[in-house]
Amino acid sequence: MNKPREFDHTVLTELQALLGDRVTTSAGIREHHGKDESYLPYAPPDAVVFPLSTEEVRDIVNICRRHQVPMIPYGVGTSLEGHILAIQGGVCVDMGRMNQVLAVHEEDMDAVVQAGVTRKQLNEFIKHTGLFFPIDPGADATLGGMTATRASGTNAVRYGTMRETVMSLKVVLADGRIIQTARRAKKSSAGYDLTRLFVGSEGTLGIITEVTVKLHPVQAAMSAAVCAFSSVKGAADTVIQTLQSGVPIARSELLCATTMAALNRHNKTSHREMPTLLLEFHGTEAGVIEQAEMVQEIARENGGLDFQWATKPEERTKLWEARHNAYFACLQLKAGSRAISTDVCVPISRLAECIVETTKDIEKASMPIPLFGHVGDGNFHLVILIDPASRKDMEEAKAINLRVVKRALAMEGTCTGEHGIGIGKQAYLQEELGDAVDLMRDIKRSFDPENLFNPGKVVRL
Amino acid sequence: MNKPREFDHTVLTELQALLGDRVTTSAGIREHHGKDESYLPYAPPDAVVFPLSTEEVRDIVNICRRHQVPMIPYGVGTSLEGHILAIQGGVCVDMGRMNQVLAVHEEDMDAVVQAGVTRKQLNEFIKHTGLFFPIDPGADATLGGMTATRASGTNAVRYGTMRETVMSLKVVLADGRIIQTARRAKKSSAGYDLTRLFVGSEGTLGIITEVTVKLHPVQAAMSAAVCAFSSVKGAADTVIQTLQSGVPIARSELLCATTMAALNRHNKTSHREMPTLLLEFHGTEAGVIEQAEMVQEIARENGGLDFQWATKPEERTKLWEARHNAYFACLQLKAGSRAISTDVCVPISRLAECIVETTKDIEKASMPIPLFGHVGDGNFHLVILIDPASRKDMEEAKAINLRVVKRALAMEGTCTGEHGIGIGKQAYLQEELGDAVDLMRDIKRSFDPENLFNPGKVVRL
Repeated sequence: MNKPREFDHTVLTELQALLGDRVTTSAGIREHHGKDESYLPYAPPDAVVFPLSTEEVRDIVNICRRHQVPMIPYGVGTSLEGHILAIQGGVCVDMGRMNQVLAVHEEDMDAVVQAGVTRKQLNEFIKHTGLFFPIDPGADATLGGMTATRASGTNAVRYGTMRETVMSLKVVLADGRIIQTARRAKKSSAGYDLTRLFVGSEGTLGIITEVTVKLHPVQAAMSAAVCAFSSVKGAADTVIQTLQSGVPIARSELLCATTMAALNRHNKTSHREMPTLLLEFHGTEAGVIEQAEMVQEIARENGGLDFQWATKPEERTKLWEARHNAYFACLQLKAGSRAISTDVCVPISRLAECIVETTKDIEKASMPIPLFGHVGDGNFHLVILIDPASRKDMEEAKAINLRVVKRALAMEGTCTGEHGIGIGKQAYLQEELGDAVDLMRDIKRSFDPENLFNPGKVVRL
Repeated sequence: MNKPREFDHTVLTELQALLGDRVTTSAGIREHHGKDESYLPYAPPDAVVFPLSTEEVRDIVNICRRHQVPMIPYGVGTSLEGHILAIQGGVCVDMGRMNQVLAVHEEDMDAVVQAGVTRKQLNEFIKHTGLFFPIDPGADATLGGMTATRASGTNAVRYGTMRETVMSLKVVLADGRIIQTARRAKKSSAGYDLTRLFVGSEGTLGIITEVTVKLHPVQAAMSAAVCAFSSVKGAADTVIQTLQSGVPIARSELLCATTMAALNRHNKTSHREMPTLLLEFHGTEAGVIEQAEMVQEIARENGGLDFQWATKPEERTKLWEARHNAYFACLQLKAGSRAISTDVCVPISRLAECIVETTKDIEKASMPIPLFGHVGDGNFHLVILIDPASRKDMEEAKAINLRVVKRALAMEGTCTGEHGIGIGKQAYLQEELGDAVDLMRDIKRSFDPENLFNPGKVVRL
């Protein structure tokens, strides 16, 4: 299944007639499009195209289908499970030049964007409206890519993930038809939920060209705090008790001592190198003070030290930039390393136990393994740092990943909270959902009968 | 397509061997299961079965499939678009005796229930936990039925609909396999979103036997208010401006003067018979006061009279019971009438305009037409009261419904915010989503190749 199919070069001639110099087979560009942020081996496509419109994507799909050439939609290449690797060759459809914000409906609190718009670009564009787009994976990913991986980030505990945020999609189907999955109403019971089916489909069911997303009002008051704890468990329990008390906390990120050390080194900061929560409160002036007081009390009872506050916008920005760079800061703990990133998510009642057990794996490991994550959602990551040339490192890392996934599954959790399946987690998907995966194969066959959309990802046929 | 298929009576023998006296062909029971709350003609099934377990549902599915007999899952029969009418005959699968709450995870704030548990039953069961289940359609529907119609209600503006609330489902597939669509983690990127595909599937893709739902903490303070307005537009604008200001309002229901009159008559109350908002605020003591002050100010600017407060639990309960009974209270405005209920939902920026235009239709109509709805979501209903024996009434009502749907579609809205497609809205679904409906047909064929699950609903093959 994974062997590249024969690439029919007449397809190039047709693509060039359509797109001119927006088709390339340059080795450098192909290589750039054949790797993501994962540990998986590079797999460059045969060609890369840069469409400017939904109609061009449709024409690309029609050409590729006639020649039976795989198509791999591409955002900025920051996926973590090999989603965009061209393991069967084919044409990479780089959506980066479809980067127009098409409409911002301030009264409705939504925006319609082309798939290549990035999250920071959108937030910059709407800054004057008093609204913001909350989903923030570490990278400045495109909204198309974030839709395709069902991404989330630090704000999900309050504002949801891409699952809750995408309202409607424009999609090019395998037969070249263009559909809109839903109207712009806030809710609907009109038939099967096609929108949610494409959210998380990883480019395997169609090519997403436009995304309609919910926006949220910027709250009157926002403040962030850093709080160190004597134990990881105390930090996790603080978040669990906060949620149970009904405090609408906006962000609640846990970082282990190793991660704090990596951040200090990377950002030249001097935070305590202890298990730490980064918290953020959104609301009215009075509401934020009230929330913060409640959480401080809960933290104290769980071994938390004093809160260090970041209330000015620039202090908050600096804090969250540091958090968003945690993955890259961790990579620098070991020169020349790459990372296998775990992504389990468990019911929060099991979170402290899951993290404590996992910490024992980390202590036994031969490599540094920072741990951090979105504990309000029950989701945390290990960044297992490996020497990419070392088979031993790779084996050890895979064994740790497997142990963590099995632990999470035993606790009614999932193998992936936000990174997706790609190539790397297909075996775990089967273990997690059993016969339900057959239904996913049925959907794939039904939507893409010739298996040309990102073949070999999510489920194999 | 709609003619009942030949009913093979050997299927009865097999069902009786499985279920004993939990199979019936009694005329009274069949008739009761062959009507819902819609205006559509009765269509009783050939038999009704009452399973007690997922395994029994599986066995029923296997028997019916072998005999090519349609199966119609049934909750309490309160759907509004003919969802449960046995238009091709077959076996009605009444889930009402699968009414066990299987687990309540207080720390995780979720519950696992059998499909026949009703929303009030669940809330009664969890009352001691400090948690509640927010989705509240007018009727005391089952969670299985609410899942199948993607129901919502008065709390959706803050807590979401069944789309956001269902975490995982146990489903019996057409080939008799039993799947679980997701783990119990709060979020996941593990493959295609099967959960969301069954939410809103109206019994056409499989039989839902268990539902895992999110619960929410009961807030420290809750208060409700009634506010009359000089115009419907002022009331709608108040809600729009409230949402834009970021106030996390819990409920915001609009009722027209006719609806208020119906409620007064039905409940022996003396509310002003003017366009009215019912509002509810949830939060901390201080937060609720702050929210209420902001909304009072907004209401005043839009022609709102004084707020009448309901802060005691029993006063609030009475107020919301009155709202939930609005549909039934309206039916009593005209003796012996049935209702065609519209259910459009538009982007909130268009809501005031949509309601004002629709009010002109109402003024021209020959029958009373109360208007009320969930204006925070852009969703409102007309209850068009018809004499079921009058062809003229029926024609007029259908014409009004069509006008309202076309108006909503022209405003980027949907023909159904929460009632679903059933039989009654299939033509509108096609108009609303065009070629996307073909994908729904593909999904139906793929999941139910013999078209035995609630055939003729959502999409026809």
